[in-house]
Amino acid sequence: MKFCTFRQQGEEQVGLVSADEQTVFALKELDASITKMEELIENYSSLKEKLEKQADQLTPIPIDRVELLAPIPQPKHDLLCVGLNYRLHALESAKFAGREYQAPKHPVYFSKRVNRAVGPNGTIQAHGDVTEKLDYEVELAVIIGKKCSKLSPDEVFDAIFGYTVGNDVSARDIQSAYGQFMFGKGLDDFAPLGPWIVTKDELSQPPHLNLKTYVNGELRQDSNTSDLIFDLPYMISELSQGMTLEPGDILLTGTPAGVGMGFQPPKFLQAGDEVICEIEGIGQLKNTIS
Amino acid sequence: MKFCTFRQQGEEQVGLVSADEQTVFALKELDASITKMEELIENYSSLKEKLEKQADQLTPIPIDRVELLAPIPQPKHDLLCVGLNYRLHALESAKFAGREYQAPKHPVYFSKRVNRAVGPNGTIQAHGDVTEKLDYEVELAVIIGKKCSKLSPDEVFDAIFGYTVGNDVSARDIQSAYGQFMFGKGLDDFAPLGPWIVTKDELSQPPHLNLKTYVNGELRQDSNTSDLIFDLPYMISELSQGMTLEPGDILLTGTPAGVGMGFQPPKFLQAGDEVICEIEGIGQLKNTIS
Repeated sequence: MKFCTFRQQGEEQVGLVSADEQTVFALKELDASITKMEELIENYSSLKEKLEKQADQLTPIPIDRVELLAPIPQPKHDLLCVGLNYRLHALESAKFAGREYQAPKHPVYFSKRVNRAVGPNGTIQAHGDVTEKLDYEVELAVIIGKKCSKLSPDEVFDAIFGYTVGNDVSARDIQSAYGQFMFGKGLDDFAPLGPWIVTKDELSQPPHLNLKTYVNGELRQDSNTSDLIFDLPYMISELSQGMTLEPGDILLTGTPAGVGMGFQPPKFLQAGDEVICEIEGIGQLKNTIS
Repeated sequence: MKFCTFRQQGEEQVGLVSADEQTVFALKELDASITKMEELIENYSSLKEKLEKQADQLTPIPIDRVELLAPIPQPKHDLLCVGLNYRLHALESAKFAGREYQAPKHPVYFSKRVNRAVGPNGTIQAHGDVTEKLDYEVELAVIIGKKCSKLSPDEVFDAIFGYTVGNDVSARDIQSAYGQFMFGKGLDDFAPLGPWIVTKDELSQPPHLNLKTYVNGELRQDSNTSDLIFDLPYMISELSQGMTLEPGDILLTGTPAGVGMGFQPPKFLQAGDEVICEIEGIGQLKNTIS
């Protein structure tokens, strides 16, 4: 199933998206206590049963009549992220930084502050006063489904709720100058997410999905989540050894080659650019730089 | 004034701490809507007036009858942190890593995941299955008082609500091996905070405060917040250029020399150790490793 957060007449709600992606059903009709995506995730097993029995009684709303928001507009924690997790992207990053490529021994975990995640069709501030090297990164975003710690790799998929598309927007000049990634990756609007969460049962395990970025219609990134250096069971099991994961936690799993800094000369984002991050089986996350 | 979060008869509440630190007054008696520290911070100007007029009508509770919790037990955002911000600590860190010391051109910002901040007298898991190099770091923690962005350095103190003591607990082996600090600094229990928040008007601007750490009674860290390489106006103004700060946001401002990894041989924390982080004019944050 696909679940979204949407705004209609000023009210933020959680919705079920129809298989043809043309219709939204407000879940508060089914259960008035479901006002946020995190509540849906925490109560999914009981809600799923209700949905299977009563979904046909819900009022259909044409999807173009609502404003889709990020599926989790205000994540409880900073996003968990991993850098340099596709080989060709790790190579282009080393080249941009003028250093030799070395295969990472461990995942390059960092985190990304999110005041409010930008949703589909939302705008991303260019932050022209602090960066001249604004860049995009399409990433498979994993949504954790339950409180968990010390997972074995075999237990990881059981702890996942679903997936969405993330754009790990980055200010390359800040990221390079400050060494630690947090500041250059954590500016306002740097965490677009969407268009909705696809539950894990709709995708293979692990998911083998093409992921692409288009900037103003030009294909820039084009890879497949099978190419991850460290895969989902490895990373989520490892993080959970010391860090309790919670329902609604989001892990951005790394980006493939083709980011702006990888081109000669680099192709950084400018105000007015349209960025589409797309993952097969999930959907398109379209944003404009403002 | 000093404000704490405490638990009494199972209920978490916000309290005013008396000047002699012997008594707590529950703020819900003054305003039933103040159930969390963030609410106090957001409504502080109106609450302050009430407090000045009616504080003597509140019921005194002996402080040893309540359980003090971290002043903000579940921060809305992961903690903003800065590394290597005291010169002698930056030197000991370079030595531990076997690299030459270079003065940082920019603050080394990173963030620290917090599921639930450990409070005064709380226990810190040793995480013996994932780290053998558990370390302490006393830090002045700044509590942001209002939503703000693009602050000039002159405007920073106006945006601060107050200060508490933080212990930036770190797993040095993970921190070194993974490069980015997030994982080795973000395990469960790695963010003790307390014992309470002291409002900024009680301290000088900027605060010049001795800060110390004792492990099992042995003085390990002993410095003064005047020795910060990048000061509060610099860091908070800089972060706010691209990142909107919110009431209740917490910035850990760096630790001085004397951490466990700085000794020859290193003195890492072991189960059973008692760690006291102390800052003049604020108080003591005492925790036990379990």
